[in-house]
Amino acid sequence: MTAETHLFWHEELPFAMSKTSWVPVVWLHSTKALLQVTVEDFEVVCKGLYRALCIREKYMQKSVQRFPRTPSQYLLCPVVYSPLGPVFTPPVKDGQDPFETGNLGEDLGYHVEMKDGVVYIYGDKAAVGRKEPKDLPYPCLEHFVDDMNFLLALIAQGPVKTYAHRRLKFLSSKFQVHEMLNEMEEMKELKNNPHRDFYNCRKVDTHIHAAACMNQKHLLRFIKKSYRVDADRVVYDSKGKQLTLQQLFQQLNLHPYDLTVDSLDVHAGRQTFQRFDKFNAKYNPVGASELRDLYLKTENAINGEYFATIIKEVGSDLEDAKYQYAEPRLSIYGRSAEEWHKLASWFNRHRVYSPNMKWMIQVPRIYDVFRSQKFLPHFGKMLENIFVPVFEATVNPQTHKELSVFLRHITGFDSVDDESKHSGHMFSTKSPKPEQWTSEKNPSYTYYIYYMYANILVLNNLRRQRGMNTFLFRPHCGEAGAITHLLAAFMTADNISHGLNLKKSPVLQYLYFLAQIPIAMSPLSNNSLFLEYAKNPLPDFHQKGLMVSLSTDDPMQFHFTKEPLMEEYAIAAQVFKLSTCDMCEIARNSVLQCGLSHQEKAKFLGESYQEEGPQGNDIRKTNVAQIRMAYRYETWCYELNLIAEGLKAE
Amino acid sequence: MTAETHLFWHEELPFAMSKTSWVPVVWLHSTKALLQVTVEDFEVVCKGLYRALCIREKYMQKSVQRFPRTPSQYLLCPVVYSPLGPVFTPPVKDGQDPFETGNLGEDLGYHVEMKDGVVYIYGDKAAVGRKEPKDLPYPCLEHFVDDMNFLLALIAQGPVKTYAHRRLKFLSSKFQVHEMLNEMEEMKELKNNPHRDFYNCRKVDTHIHAAACMNQKHLLRFIKKSYRVDADRVVYDSKGKQLTLQQLFQQLNLHPYDLTVDSLDVHAGRQTFQRFDKFNAKYNPVGASELRDLYLKTENAINGEYFATIIKEVGSDLEDAKYQYAEPRLSIYGRSAEEWHKLASWFNRHRVYSPNMKWMIQVPRIYDVFRSQKFLPHFGKMLENIFVPVFEATVNPQTHKELSVFLRHITGFDSVDDESKHSGHMFSTKSPKPEQWTSEKNPSYTYYIYYMYANILVLNNLRRQRGMNTFLFRPHCGEAGAITHLLAAFMTADNISHGLNLKKSPVLQYLYFLAQIPIAMSPLSNNSLFLEYAKNPLPDFHQKGLMVSLSTDDPMQFHFTKEPLMEEYAIAAQVFKLSTCDMCEIARNSVLQCGLSHQEKAKFLGESYQEEGPQGNDIRKTNVAQIRMAYRYETWCYELNLIAEGLKAE
Repeated sequence: MTAETHLFWHEELPFAMSKTSWVPVVWLHSTKALLQVTVEDFEVVCKGLYRALCIREKYMQKSVQRFPRTPSQYLLCPVVYSPLGPVFTPPVKDGQDPFETGNLGEDLGYHVEMKDGVVYIYGDKAAVGRKEPKDLPYPCLEHFVDDMNFLLALIAQGPVKTYAHRRLKFLSSKFQVHEMLNEMEEMKELKNNPHRDFYNCRKVDTHIHAAACMNQKHLLRFIKKSYRVDADRVVYDSKGKQLTLQQLFQQLNLHPYDLTVDSLDVHAGRQTFQRFDKFNAKYNPVGASELRDLYLKTENAINGEYFATIIKEVGSDLEDAKYQYAEPRLSIYGRSAEEWHKLASWFNRHRVYSPNMKWMIQVPRIYDVFRSQKFLPHFGKMLENIFVPVFEATVNPQTHKELSVFLRHITGFDSVDDESKHSGHMFSTKSPKPEQWTSEKNPSYTYYIYYMYANILVLNNLRRQRGMNTFLFRPHCGEAGAITHLLAAFMTADNISHGLNLKKSPVLQYLYFLAQIPIAMSPLSNNSLFLEYAKNPLPDFHQKGLMVSLSTDDPMQFHFTKEPLMEEYAIAAQVFKLSTCDMCEIARNSVLQCGLSHQEKAKFLGESYQEEGPQGNDIRKTNVAQIRMAYRYETWCYELNLIAEGLKAE
Repeated sequence: MTAETHLFWHEELPFAMSKTSWVPVVWLHSTKALLQVTVEDFEVVCKGLYRALCIREKYMQKSVQRFPRTPSQYLLCPVVYSPLGPVFTPPVKDGQDPFETGNLGEDLGYHVEMKDGVVYIYGDKAAVGRKEPKDLPYPCLEHFVDDMNFLLALIAQGPVKTYAHRRLKFLSSKFQVHEMLNEMEEMKELKNNPHRDFYNCRKVDTHIHAAACMNQKHLLRFIKKSYRVDADRVVYDSKGKQLTLQQLFQQLNLHPYDLTVDSLDVHAGRQTFQRFDKFNAKYNPVGASELRDLYLKTENAINGEYFATIIKEVGSDLEDAKYQYAEPRLSIYGRSAEEWHKLASWFNRHRVYSPNMKWMIQVPRIYDVFRSQKFLPHFGKMLENIFVPVFEATVNPQTHKELSVFLRHITGFDSVDDESKHSGHMFSTKSPKPEQWTSEKNPSYTYYIYYMYANILVLNNLRRQRGMNTFLFRPHCGEAGAITHLLAAFMTADNISHGLNLKKSPVLQYLYFLAQIPIAMSPLSNNSLFLEYAKNPLPDFHQKGLMVSLSTDDPMQFHFTKEPLMEEYAIAAQVFKLSTCDMCEIARNSVLQCGLSHQEKAKFLGESYQEEGPQGNDIRKTNVAQIRMAYRYETWCYELNLIAEGLKAE
């Protein structure tokens, strides 16, 4: 440390660290000078932020999701529920069959019934009448709305906004100073770290849709290959008329040999910018929904065989690449109660398994479409279709073997759709209950999110009781639309995809930082849909210390090369000028964020990965410099400590 | 065409075109209103631009390089020399040996001698004394300096600057309007074009250095593999002491197993920005020049075997990718007369051949380094070392068989070094002749360029006479430094690499457009060295209609993925939002620019590829829309026609 840098030790660092030559960025300052808020305001702000963090902690713990320990240690948030974390299915052992149906668990004989949009568990059917559900945590709508209203007020409060804005600005500048002082030292650590580099540290594609997980060239090759092999096979049912692959292509006036990525037309271009509707249409190869049905769907005349094969090819590419993992989303629409069983049957029949893939379920928010087509009487039915089958399989795996096996491979739920579509509805205690939501209008984002969360909460507690794996709630959030989306996810989601709109709310952005909520960002996807690459907030969030990872979203639409995740990292590295340490930190974040099992995370990140701060980092596995980890942890603790000081003042 | 667009047909298009629905962008305007220059100025400007184009035409034709026909047609430039183009070696036929030494040609018995930095050919030694060189075109320094001074004045002339600036601005806007009107039509053409898309249209990496043509991961894997196989092999001569690979690594205190891309440290990072010196040091793996000598050099204790093997692996990857080609540069330093024979011997010994590679020779501008170390008495000696062996092999291939075979695979010369290093010297007729250049100072860029051009001119004419392949002059130019570099290349170079500084001179930029001088751009390289990605002029040049291609420069330092050229295209497509048509146009430019043979170009672009305008485009091969080609040609002709009008006014 030199006089030139004007830096001085401020206080003891809150953790032990082996001696390195890094220079902590700690200014000599009076708290007041730095904050530029009045003492009274400061107290109000700290109380507000404190309560916000307590709210998130409560909702996370209640739903068997994650909340870091450090904020609780600083702020002594009351731990209401047991702090047990989520349960992930351990990796399939050598010789073990990923589809085995032994040890699925006995029938508990419970009765499952939805009321006001939430599934309740009863000892038997008679208990329903007695209103005596099993003793499990259930959600409370009134409390939720209270908490939500508190947060809504908080993020609009002047002093809180000023404070959060200033702290975020400070975090940016502090990181820049850190870089200037320590960049070469970080690099030196990495150079001295044998055998591990960015290429062989684990990275997880934390946000990818199964129906677009192959790139356009891969899909094209697959279509051509299928035609060479299967031209005479009956593959399509056109209103009762059986068509061979050849006949299908004839009907479309196409020959696969002539097909190109241009005529396939599944790639997003300049035309899709700010046009989510056009983007969705890109899922239809050659604009023909028939080809989408045949190649990218699980239910069709060939039982989704092609789709399963393509996905397994993607899985096998990941296995070849060895250090890359993906978390593809499969859809459950909630249109009928049969969907789960059909999807599980597809999964088991085609043995859609890769050790490098963890599965998620995405639920499109398209009640309005189904309702207007009279597929559903009310929103409650959609929720029933989505959740009741899962509860039933959880209660009695024996009569739902395929679904139970499938659920073992599922690690979470996603909520998806165009967030830029405005919904007039404002969620409150007076909102119609799902069973009363019979209008053709779509419920708001928050309404969807609450009911998904509410059911996952009950489900996770039931499954944890049974020793089964639990699910994370990981909605798309903040890609566009109102910032209330990001508020709803702050209360309910273990982690989110996108998060672009955190740009627009300093308070939420600061809270996402304080609670270290993981954000799977996809700047290439954003570049085609909502935000130019150079304007993407990823580097800004990363500098401030938000926990960001990189993901591809839809390789079919956005990527050009054979390794879409590497393409995503390479472009970010080039355009945002990320250092190796930055890239490896982002890769480490992706492993922490994802649904890989405890065993896998321990193997990929080191045994202590659950420790927060530098103690949780094993540079030999992650290639993240300890200096960086220490900086991040010191910075986080410093911000939490400020809030703790504000609370003490009371 | 709608009233809304305010566009009207202005005149007949200067070419026949099959009926399509594209909308030509032609404004209704008076010439004067558009030009905003006075009539007198306009005439002066046109005369100046006309003379500039005539100068380039003269220097290109005299040196057996290329100049398009369209400007001559519009401007009736006097064709002084025969318009025969360059000669490229035809592709190796099936069953033919690329290293065969039959038909190399007889000994002509000529005598070769350098005078004033230029090689002259004499019937025999006696003719030297009589000052009677063979009847070949020789360069004339006085004329060159005259022409150069004219151009120097031209690019600084106020009205010419204004005119060029306005025309370039107009070209930008015109392209944007073209896109708005015709983008969907262009896309429709491509969709209807069977079998061909961006992936299977040919693209050439027009600028890549052999010593960095593998990516960092490839080099790392190669080093590890070599150690597994060759640990006990003597591979290094350390001041007379023979070292095995194991001993070499022990001496460096390294074990290959521990090596990572971080410790290898050959990748450019934020540290290299504006630091070409640091960048050059990155060629040393682990900072050890021993490893550079062993793995990336042609002369060492194992006769450059490792280097040859790595290059052949890159070649084989290109062959697998099928549609990608590369033009790697090998170095001739001019330090000794033996270099050519050693390099040719390496090339033949290891049979460094791939059908997907065309070779170039790069000459680093480091006379000052050699002179200060007393390796050279004067600059003339360096030129002698570079050119005399090539002339001798051309005159008598029989006594220089290996070199003659090697030259058959060479397609051009490059001139390389840090352009940002300022040279105080100003090239003029009073400059010392190369033999008198004994100072330790480096000659200027222009001085180097002139003497390379001068010798290539004589060499090409001699070789064409003999039916041998000729060489293109393709220097690095305009990556940094003074704009005079771009002026020198305008006079002497068939095409250039980089061209960034055309940003700074509207007149030169406009002349590069008018003469359609190909520019191999490397935005990822620039991003690490001289210019942020988002600020790269590539999309701007491309819109205006300059003939740009994409190239990687140094995959080892700049790229992350297994397919560096695809990475380069993918990032450009994403960040600059290029359309498929843009990408395919750039790929087509790369084939036109490169040193592939006539036969290969005809195969990859269509038989009529030498025609200018849409007639020269075969969409079935190139996937470039005819609408785009018509737009480009119409626009080019329009600009040339304006100049022709200005000349008529005289």
